[in-house]
Amino acid sequence: MEQAESKKTATQASGLRTAVAGVSGYAGAELARLLLAHPRLQGTVPTFLGRMDANSAAGAQSLYDLHPQLARHSGGPAPEVTPFTWEQLQDRGTEVLFLALPHEQSREWVPEAIARGMRVIDLSGAWRLHDPANAAVYKLHDADPAAAARLQAAAVYGCPELHRSAIAGASLVANPGCYATSIILALAPLIQTGMLDLDRGIIADAKSGVSGAGKAPTPKTHFMYAADNLSAYGVFGHRHTGELLEQLGLQSDQIQFTPHLLPIPRGILSTIYARLAGNATAVDIERTLRSFYADSPMVRVRRAGELPQILHVAHTNFCDIGFEVGPDGKRLVLVSCLDNLLKGAAGQAVQNLNVMCGWNESEGLL
Amino acid sequence: MEQAESKKTATQASGLRTAVAGVSGYAGAELARLLLAHPRLQGTVPTFLGRMDANSAAGAQSLYDLHPQLARHSGGPAPEVTPFTWEQLQDRGTEVLFLALPHEQSREWVPEAIARGMRVIDLSGAWRLHDPANAAVYKLHDADPAAAARLQAAAVYGCPELHRSAIAGASLVANPGCYATSIILALAPLIQTGMLDLDRGIIADAKSGVSGAGKAPTPKTHFMYAADNLSAYGVFGHRHTGELLEQLGLQSDQIQFTPHLLPIPRGILSTIYARLAGNATAVDIERTLRSFYADSPMVRVRRAGELPQILHVAHTNFCDIGFEVGPDGKRLVLVSCLDNLLKGAAGQAVQNLNVMCGWNESEGLL
Amino acid sequence: MEQAESKKTATQASGLRTAVAGVSGYAGAELARLLLAHPRLQGTVPTFLGRMDANSAAGAQSLYDLHPQLARHSGGPAPEVTPFTWEQLQDRGTEVLFLALPHEQSREWVPEAIARGMRVIDLSGAWRLHDPANAAVYKLHDADPAAAARLQAAAVYGCPELHRSAIAGASLVANPGCYATSIILALAPLIQTGMLDLDRGIIADAKSGVSGAGKAPTPKTHFMYAADNLSAYGVFGHRHTGELLEQLGLQSDQIQFTPHLLPIPRGILSTIYARLAGNATAVDIERTLRSFYADSPMVRVRRAGELPQILHVAHTNFCDIGFEVGPDGKRLVLVSCLDNLLKGAAGQAVQNLNVMCGWNESEGLL
Amino acid sequence: MEQAESKKTATQASGLRTAVAGVSGYAGAELARLLLAHPRLQGTVPTFLGRMDANSAAGAQSLYDLHPQLARHSGGPAPEVTPFTWEQLQDRGTEVLFLALPHEQSREWVPEAIARGMRVIDLSGAWRLHDPANAAVYKLHDADPAAAARLQAAAVYGCPELHRSAIAGASLVANPGCYATSIILALAPLIQTGMLDLDRGIIADAKSGVSGAGKAPTPKTHFMYAADNLSAYGVFGHRHTGELLEQLGLQSDQIQFTPHLLPIPRGILSTIYARLAGNATAVDIERTLRSFYADSPMVRVRRAGELPQILHVAHTNFCDIGFEVGPDGKRLVLVSCLDNLLKGAAGQAVQNLNVMCGWNESEGLL
Repeated sequence: MEQAESKKTATQASGLRTAVAGVSGYAGAELARLLLAHPRLQGTVPTFLGRMDANSAAGAQSLYDLHPQLARHSGGPAPEVTPFTWEQLQDRGTEVLFLALPHEQSREWVPEAIARGMRVIDLSGAWRLHDPANAAVYKLHDADPAAAARLQAAAVYGCPELHRSAIAGASLVANPGCYATSIILALAPLIQTGMLDLDRGIIADAKSGVSGAGKAPTPKTHFMYAADNLSAYGVFGHRHTGELLEQLGLQSDQIQFTPHLLPIPRGILSTIYARLAGNATAVDIERTLRSFYADSPMVRVRRAGELPQILHVAHTNFCDIGFEVGPDGKRLVLVSCLDNLLKGAAGQAVQNLNVMCGWNESEGLL
Repeated sequence: MEQAESKKTATQASGLRTAVAGVSGYAGAELARLLLAHPRLQGTVPTFLGRMDANSAAGAQSLYDLHPQLARHSGGPAPEVTPFTWEQLQDRGTEVLFLALPHEQSREWVPEAIARGMRVIDLSGAWRLHDPANAAVYKLHDADPAAAARLQAAAVYGCPELHRSAIAGASLVANPGCYATSIILALAPLIQTGMLDLDRGIIADAKSGVSGAGKAPTPKTHFMYAADNLSAYGVFGHRHTGELLEQLGLQSDQIQFTPHLLPIPRGILSTIYARLAGNATAVDIERTLRSFYADSPMVRVRRAGELPQILHVAHTNFCDIGFEVGPDGKRLVLVSCLDNLLKGAAGQAVQNLNVMCGWNESEGLL
Repeated sequence: MEQAESKKTATQASGLRTAVAGVSGYAGAELARLLLAHPRLQGTVPTFLGRMDANSAAGAQSLYDLHPQLARHSGGPAPEVTPFTWEQLQDRGTEVLFLALPHEQSREWVPEAIARGMRVIDLSGAWRLHDPANAAVYKLHDADPAAAARLQAAAVYGCPELHRSAIAGASLVANPGCYATSIILALAPLIQTGMLDLDRGIIADAKSGVSGAGKAPTPKTHFMYAADNLSAYGVFGHRHTGELLEQLGLQSDQIQFTPHLLPIPRGILSTIYARLAGNATAVDIERTLRSFYADSPMVRVRRAGELPQILHVAHTNFCDIGFEVGPDGKRLVLVSCLDNLLKGAAGQAVQNLNVMCGWNESEGLL
Repeated sequence: MEQAESKKTATQASGLRTAVAGVSGYAGAELARLLLAHPRLQGTVPTFLGRMDANSAAGAQSLYDLHPQLARHSGGPAPEVTPFTWEQLQDRGTEVLFLALPHEQSREWVPEAIARGMRVIDLSGAWRLHDPANAAVYKLHDADPAAAARLQAAAVYGCPELHRSAIAGASLVANPGCYATSIILALAPLIQTGMLDLDRGIIADAKSGVSGAGKAPTPKTHFMYAADNLSAYGVFGHRHTGELLEQLGLQSDQIQFTPHLLPIPRGILSTIYARLAGNATAVDIERTLRSFYADSPMVRVRRAGELPQILHVAHTNFCDIGFEVGPDGKRLVLVSCLDNLLKGAAGQAVQNLNVMCGWNESEGLL
């Protein structure tokens, strides 16, 4: 069984020195959990850094006090979370740096990290978009615009299913947006093979759990706003739209993406509507999807007519894709699900780490 | 203030004798609550009947034991719920009969009720569809097909906003489906005024709370299935589709309706995607909607760009409609919300009662 | 039927001029909803005031923009919410002022309101406690301590079931805490009749929905903290403890009260453990409870062995009380439920208004 | 770091042949997940058996179709779930059999399994209670009462923290009840060291998520019953009470245990009230708890005054214990949390497997 294999090789600790900046948020906590349990990283403890602002005054803090659910025992020594400093990263010989920070912070720090020889996996939106028109939504300011542009040109969009080999050699991996991942993985195989009538337009009606809105207490993350509710937002202007356009090669009027806030902690379900271009049948579509993801361990393609749901993917790094074709043979409904904190953030970041290091892509993720 | 007015006239009890068959379900409980508090029905107690099968053995039961939340006091006499019999309805002089029963039962009983001179408001799907091709989904069997066809022809689809005057004189009102209500109310004004490019198709991505799935414990209504989850179902075959086609005058390939099961007790939010036909602006759309619903007290039209959400309508009989127009001036996103047990079922049934009796349409519903 | 009676008398509008300060919070919204629909207040619109800080800059705002769920129509005129000023209250001839504000604010404003001749129903904890040792938990500061002490002495604890006649004549009613209401109503009849062995101690394990924590977005009201969770807090120091001691006549070591945060929007369930003092049976207990609440329309006593649950009281002003006696005839478990925003706050405030005005105690609350 | 150690030894696959009967339920699914990922069981696939009744007709089924969330890939071969037969267990050389079945079934099958030389870990309540008076609540019927009594006498209560060495050599391990585990682990250290005044009585107010009620759709597991609700049940007669009495050495009037149904999928929080016997301080209590669990990797003791909550233990095999001592130095409140499907069922079963096999107790559980 290949799974036993993977476990066996997994035990060869790599000695790789990693660091996570921004461990206090939801994605940061999942990153810490995954890295601490990652077979290749046994024997080394990642460096955990808080945000510069929040923790600098507070000094070092126990990771287990910050996130009690991560404690592996009571009483004994715990990994420390310390304020961010370059010296510390340098002293600990950091080779790979994960950034789970606001995009402004990321845009500022990544050039420095690259200059210091680290490889970076950035979970923010700061480096995902190559077309300045799309990136404008982030209102980024660069101290050295020309250098930033060069770095941007070298950044790889961290979707291993689409850019595996580029990620393997990348210095800077821009981890995709959670919504974008769910939509891109469902559509890319069909668009690339010309199966969709793009002129008829694509609708992506997406729904996400509240962790996608971040840890800051706001009126919209208040339990009383989110619970027993559903609301649409960012109807024509969500920041993940640019990722859809660039990764799927679409024009802005070819896709309409609407996010909704679901009253659940985690999980995204995207219902995607498109028209088939030719005479493709359900069998063709399933075959195309399976073929596209034959070597992608973190995508599970469902049989035609079997739709995934959020419970199937919560607490996993899988993206599940299912679909149905209408009785007219023209209308296509795709359903794509993932856990926004894992395949939509921290899990995909570790998947990128695996690819960057030449390890099994699913290591530490099953 | 007109609200004070309506309260004042409300106090003239009508003496109307009503009955509810199927009071044990969720819609039945809401009906009981609304009728017991209805200003026009003070002084009379509706006749409450259970399902023939479930309660016939059990005999009479207190409404307050069946639904403790409805009790208006502790200890004293409570309305009784008795097994269904025609004699009882006749003896109590029932003038208006609400049926909150499975559609097969409704199809069987409604002809008899009409024959006995009662007016009927039926909450099932049995009498909503006029085109036999659409109605086929219900697999209805009629003892007397010709009589049933005549009755069907006379049945009025109970959407007061569309069929107010026909409802006023109807003997049989077929209360609309919950999903259908939310979608029809958002689209009808725009389709009737030719503002939509129907050839480009309409997508209605709808999400409903679990009460819409009924009171029977099933694998899909189990808390462990519904909670923390979202799932699409009935993608190309939901029974409410026929209502959309008939009430909106659409062809089956012009609208795609996909329901989803939300992890909340009550509420529907439908996100509807369409293309504008001409040069209509957001101002035009808002004006059209407001004009259409100027005399409809139970629809609240939002200002352009303000989207309703389920919390705004839960526990009310309102349908809230909002929309946004895309930057290209062509793409339209409508959001329509209602409480599936009220405007989507029992509340709309009482609204129909009001119309049938010539009372204020919102009486007992604010 | 007495319910029809109450409706009939309800229509005599009183012309009473009311005001609500602090309408932006959850209790404030419920107060606005109840007052706008109150039969005795038809024809007059309450004055709605925001918090001094939050709204003074913003100027007037529509109540329906603040709380879209309260809108009774779309488009037309809406009640205004304006910044708090004494002039405004005076100009509108305010007779009864509801305060749904932080206790510091209440402590400051109530003396002025009383001095201006208004009757006050205060929803904060500022005026509930008569023993300074108990009140110390609120760290109150009075500009004129002697005057405040006199006012405190005249303040009536707004539990109509215990203090109906005092409330009827009161100038200042201190509306009880939500937890305290649920516990006091279950225990008072049994303690007053000497049925409990107080030396063995009473445990009140109480659980509340998130609305009890207020509208401010904090780490503990974040959906990700409250959802799928349960947590105990304030174990030996919750501020409602003093109300229990004073209203039940207990010593601090005779009752242990532990609140928990439930992952639901609204509702409190208190499970209360006590030992019976003598030979009282379940029949005696039920009889004692029923007798005590014979003239209290907002308390529903359950039959012995029938326990209430939150769904029975959510969105109602009832407090439901049930109990079981152990097989040893000594151990007693009481369960008391209410909706923390209604019987635990705004509903009880309106109940107090009814008592203060000599109206039916349940008017506008059924 | 000992964690790296444990990982390293974990890679020595044992070749142990396990089987799970009753894999269709919630605990069964968690067992399948844990065993498939258990480091010691790599290279062997457990035998998965459905219930005799449910699956015998259906024949073999894919584990991944039964529980899509468990699929480790799409398309490839999946473990099979087959109807239960003794031949199959024998043919596959089953050494350890997990039973996640109703207690009646377990009581019937366990003697046969033992007779065939298997070691059994039983997740039902069938074999937990040694005192027939306590066991009577299960209404068990034995074909051979004398043999069943002998087997019962040899059965070990599967709480590793209390019975580690007996479990190591046991043939039959009766996996504890979920509620019982949370309460016993909090109280045992304090009762065994005489720190509690048992004559004053102990109250255990426990709250559990819905998965504890099982997979069968019933009125009480319906989403509409459980969501937004809290209810107490089984107040003086819950079946786990006998476990408390036997494991803690208490008389029935010394402890009152009340379970409640929480509106969450998983997790138990027990709030436990007791009186201290002597002059023990918070420091003494914390020291006693830490000392008792010094070698128990799956219990996390919190610092005095730090209370655990369900989010800290969900999806883990930890039991978290915290406490506060009242200002009088006499009153003690303990809070104990665990995931009812893991430490309360499947996780504890795997912990018992580890102990029975001499492996690290937390292997496959961190």
